Amino acid sequence: MSGLFITMEGGDGAGKSTQIENIKKYYEARGYECICTREPGGTPVGEMLRNVLLDAANTDMDDVTEMMIFAASRSQHVRELIKPALAEGKIVICDRFKDSSVAYQGVGRGLGDIVEMVNDVAVEGLVPDITFWMDLDPETGRARVEKNGEPDRMESEKLDFHSRVYEGYRGLQEKYPERIKRIDATKSIEEIKEDIYAELDKLTDR
Amino acid sequence: MSGLFITMEGGDGAGKSTQIENIKKYYEARGYECICTREPGGTPVGEMLRNVLLDAANTDMDDVTEMMIFAASRSQHVRELIKPALAEGKIVICDRFKDSSVAYQGVGRGLGDIVEMVNDVAVEGLVPDITFWMDLDPETGRARVEKNGEPDRMESEKLDFHSRVYEGYRGLQEKYPERIKRIDATKSIEEIKEDIYAELDKLTDR
Repeated sequence: MSGLFITMEGGDGAGKSTQIENIKKYYEARGYECICTREPGGTPVGEMLRNVLLDAANTDMDDVTEMMIFAASRSQHVRELIKPALAEGKIVICDRFKDSSVAYQGVGRGLGDIVEMVNDVAVEGLVPDITFWMDLDPETGRARVEKNGEPDRMESEKLDFHSRVYEGYRGLQEKYPERIKRIDATKSIEEIKEDIYAELDKLTDR
Repeated sequence: MSGLFITMEGGDGAGKSTQIENIKKYYEARGYECICTREPGGTPVGEMLRNVLLDAANTDMDDVTEMMIFAASRSQHVRELIKPALAEGKIVICDRFKDSSVAYQGVGRGLGDIVEMVNDVAVEGLVPDITFWMDLDPETGRARVEKNGEPDRMESEKLDFHSRVYEGYRGLQEKYPERIKRIDATKSIEEIKEDIYAELDKLTDR
């Protein structure tokens, strides 16, 4: 039996972490073993790379370099953790995956198709069974992040960057409507949970 | 005026560092400004990535991940240091470049064509003006490295890995005989220097 690979996407401040916990509860209540993980990171090598990426001192980091470090972290994550867990029938819930690179580096940074190409090498054919895109306008997301203290290197990018990222996500959702479910992240935590659970029910029925 | 990009390649223990110093002397005696650099590394971001790569504790690092971290370091190096220095007319002498990835990850690890593809994104069209391949059989190289104390994660790979890397370099030299000059690294330091200087004289005459 093969498990399920669920990814959570969206801008910062959209409430991804809270809903990952809810997805975990959904499956644990049904007797499944869940692994919650995140990108960049998720493995010892990946966490070292995460530190390089998010270090606010690395402001000279080139865009292509950044994209490749994300892909390196993902490559390790897929092979060391995600694929083995899926092969054991587990539910893997991941905070950000390849869609993040397409939205942030491909559209946000304007790197285009090379992002897809390099990431296809990293993911080795792995596609999420379902992806939740927490749709929140960039201004509201920014305001929520700023309330939480010092932003990291990615969070402190200017608003027009985050607006491009938003457009990147919208384009992905239009391209892959079957896989990527748009979730209205302006709703209350409880309402969002119900929306997500409704999608998970449909997934189970498939 | 555009500078010169010179790379030094070969297995460990072949004497690359000593000859890089000699190349530097060659050009400084002729009034050029030289920058000696290395991969992985060469920039603050690259040195952080170098630490991740060479950390002997990271034995679980996946081969594709390794290849991508080398490419990320290279991407930063090309854009932050090498291309700007060449644009200022400087001589850039680099210990390892893309050929290392093709030999070590492409052939040594058996990753094949994806190494070239990902690295083409990293180097953005930059090709060395001349590359010296320090040709030394892997057994002799190993013996020299072991005399120098504790080997790092790459150096401690088994001999059959280093034999494949050697074949990788031989293949590259056959493919690009105009760019890659084979240097017999069993000769004395002084003889090797003379062989390299002869090639540099020819390069100046071109």
